[in-house]
Amino acid sequence: MADKSQNWILIVTAQTPTNIAVIKYWGKRDETLILPVNDSISVTLDPNHLCTTTTVAVSPSFEKDRMWLNGKEISLSGDRFQSCLREIRSRASDVEDEEKGICIRKQDWDKFHVHIASYNNFPTAAGLASSAAGLACLVFALAKLMNVKEDLGQLSAIARQGSGSACRSLYGGFVKWVMGNDASGSDSIAVQLANETHWDDLVIIIAVVSSRQKETSSTTGMRESVETSPLLHHRAKEVVPKRILQMQEAIQNRDFPSFARLTCTDSNQFHAVCLDTRPPIFYMNDTSHRQVLIINCIEKWNRSEGTPQVAYTFDAGPNAVLIARNRNVATLLLQRLLFYFPPHPDTELNSYVIGDKSILQDAGIEAMKDVEALLPPPEIKDNVPSQKYKGDVSYFICTKPGRGPVVLADESQSLLHPKTGLPK
Amino acid sequence: MADKSQNWILIVTAQTPTNIAVIKYWGKRDETLILPVNDSISVTLDPNHLCTTTTVAVSPSFEKDRMWLNGKEISLSGDRFQSCLREIRSRASDVEDEEKGICIRKQDWDKFHVHIASYNNFPTAAGLASSAAGLACLVFALAKLMNVKEDLGQLSAIARQGSGSACRSLYGGFVKWVMGNDASGSDSIAVQLANETHWDDLVIIIAVVSSRQKETSSTTGMRESVETSPLLHHRAKEVVPKRILQMQEAIQNRDFPSFARLTCTDSNQFHAVCLDTRPPIFYMNDTSHRQVLIINCIEKWNRSEGTPQVAYTFDAGPNAVLIARNRNVATLLLQRLLFYFPPHPDTELNSYVIGDKSILQDAGIEAMKDVEALLPPPEIKDNVPSQKYKGDVSYFICTKPGRGPVVLADESQSLLHPKTGLPK
Repeated sequence: MADKSQNWILIVTAQTPTNIAVIKYWGKRDETLILPVNDSISVTLDPNHLCTTTTVAVSPSFEKDRMWLNGKEISLSGDRFQSCLREIRSRASDVEDEEKGICIRKQDWDKFHVHIASYNNFPTAAGLASSAAGLACLVFALAKLMNVKEDLGQLSAIARQGSGSACRSLYGGFVKWVMGNDASGSDSIAVQLANETHWDDLVIIIAVVSSRQKETSSTTGMRESVETSPLLHHRAKEVVPKRILQMQEAIQNRDFPSFARLTCTDSNQFHAVCLDTRPPIFYMNDTSHRQVLIINCIEKWNRSEGTPQVAYTFDAGPNAVLIARNRNVATLLLQRLLFYFPPHPDTELNSYVIGDKSILQDAGIEAMKDVEALLPPPEIKDNVPSQKYKGDVSYFICTKPGRGPVVLADESQSLLHPKTGLPK
Repeated sequence: MADKSQNWILIVTAQTPTNIAVIKYWGKRDETLILPVNDSISVTLDPNHLCTTTTVAVSPSFEKDRMWLNGKEISLSGDRFQSCLREIRSRASDVEDEEKGICIRKQDWDKFHVHIASYNNFPTAAGLASSAAGLACLVFALAKLMNVKEDLGQLSAIARQGSGSACRSLYGGFVKWVMGNDASGSDSIAVQLANETHWDDLVIIIAVVSSRQKETSSTTGMRESVETSPLLHHRAKEVVPKRILQMQEAIQNRDFPSFARLTCTDSNQFHAVCLDTRPPIFYMNDTSHRQVLIINCIEKWNRSEGTPQVAYTFDAGPNAVLIARNRNVATLLLQRLLFYFPPHPDTELNSYVIGDKSILQDAGIEAMKDVEALLPPPEIKDNVPSQKYKGDVSYFICTKPGRGPVVLADESQSLLHPKTGLPK
């Protein structure tokens, strides 16, 4: 076994994407194991624009498990972190690094402590599923460090115990979280429906909105919905199973009209269930008309085109996620969004539209004067709004479906110092 | 038979209340006959504050059926008016007025034309069920004029064909619209659960809000919900039947906690179904945060008291209807409402709180300075809003459960001139 007095450090860095559900997860049948009341389906978002990077390290010199999130130390004592650490440790295998002279035996892993540093390339509190990407990345990186032999599906069941939707971040492309039946949760895992190259026409624009009000946490909200909403149970038992089959088929066939219809109606139904909860939960409209404006804009546009151009979906927060059928539609969408939600005069356009900025170029927008010159969308005709909503959106992220977790072999990307094991 | 060359006029004036559903009607199984997908229950509102007055007249000198609403002539050609007129005429009986020398035989009624004048003592477009009160009053007044022998239940089935919820305005107090089973609609009628004296502690405050945006009409909205919302059908079949029984029991026992819980959850569920409709319908949040603020205020207050003090319910429009368990609670409620929604500085307090103004006196509010001096509700503690919502509410109406339709015998209350049969 490795000599604990030695001052070696073994380090792994991984990058994991976030994901947005198009058939929503809302409601647990088991709160501890995080087992859902229905299947859900998500699109993995391109990690170039939204991802978590996590470095995990093990060393005989570490005196306890420690974690830093975006450079700040946080507690690892929560049940969810502990579940993930325990489950991964219990599956650890022998690790040998001849070069460094390290050899850790399977049975000795629980004698070592780990350091974890995690970083989101997007604001943590922005409601962009940072916990999904974060827990998935933690599990994935630890599994690599500890030479866990389990496949991604089995790892997804571990990530699930950290944060339900984290299980869907273990694959790229289009992912289904199968609710499973077993009381142990062993069959409540994520499976990939199609990888990110399967339907690469899609373009995703996220309107990030700063919420002025604390929302109900999704853990609390779900619990209250399960306990009080009669519609939730009908949704879970009768509505979602059919939609899951339809959504799988839509993804399989790259059938955008069906994909958009299912995405929008399922987002609305999730928020309907929130409203049917006692007391009612308002994720969609707690602070403003923004979401309603965006929904009405997309619905009107889709109707005027005769077939859906864009799908919208809203999670348990105020951000809008808009999925355009192709790049051309995405440029038209970005023009509409900037028409309704121009940046504050003191905001740089360059920091107002981030991610894949080529969409901005395709839209012919290079400077604020181009935003000011935008014409109202043709489908609203004489109904031009008297009011624009300057400053109502913090920024837009242009992205697309993306790949699953990867190990970053380049040591320069490590978040922990190779000698000290502390954040760089 | 009456001599048509004679210039007599026979006039009847009636007054009919409006009503607010506490278990909502949303969705028709027959669009023509207006047959609902579920039972509903309403509270009749005091006609002293909200009512329609309708004068109907018959004369051999009238050349066609004519109608005036709030002094302006409107078309009677709509199917719904025509249904009501036809159904009432077909049930007319002999009418004799010896004093005037009038005698109309049953079989001759369809040779005579009628004039109808109707007036709401509240703004027609304010979304306060003016069509319910209006159609109920039309049917009631015509039935009196034409000596129709049918009971109120049978009249309610006729009023229903004019406007669904009109059937519930034929009784005072607490009223159930039984959906019925028959394809003819003959058993889809209103029945009185309890009269207005049964539970006279209740005080109702309505926040009338001017909507800045045209809402989906309820006829269109219902049709779209029936066609596209999977949750609507579950609600109608599984949820409402149980709630109807619970609500009847709550009313019977004057059990305010159950009454309030059912009223609030059913209002929220109705709006949840609207959101589950494709495209989604936003009655609760199309223009502002007002409704969410009111709901959060009431929910927080009810929780802090340990038992519900106030119930809220919202129809297919932006107005809030708030039901307080008694006068004392109503004064506390009015204080809270005026704290959050003070009148515009150029609004007279006297025209900002209308109806039963004694609630305002009980609340110790006599002038604007008293509104300005209102303290934040104790339950919000340190969470005092930085913003008040001046001008967001047009006015408040203080009222209570009230009586059903009556004939106004005093000729001075007639809306038609006794000689010409034209609006006074």
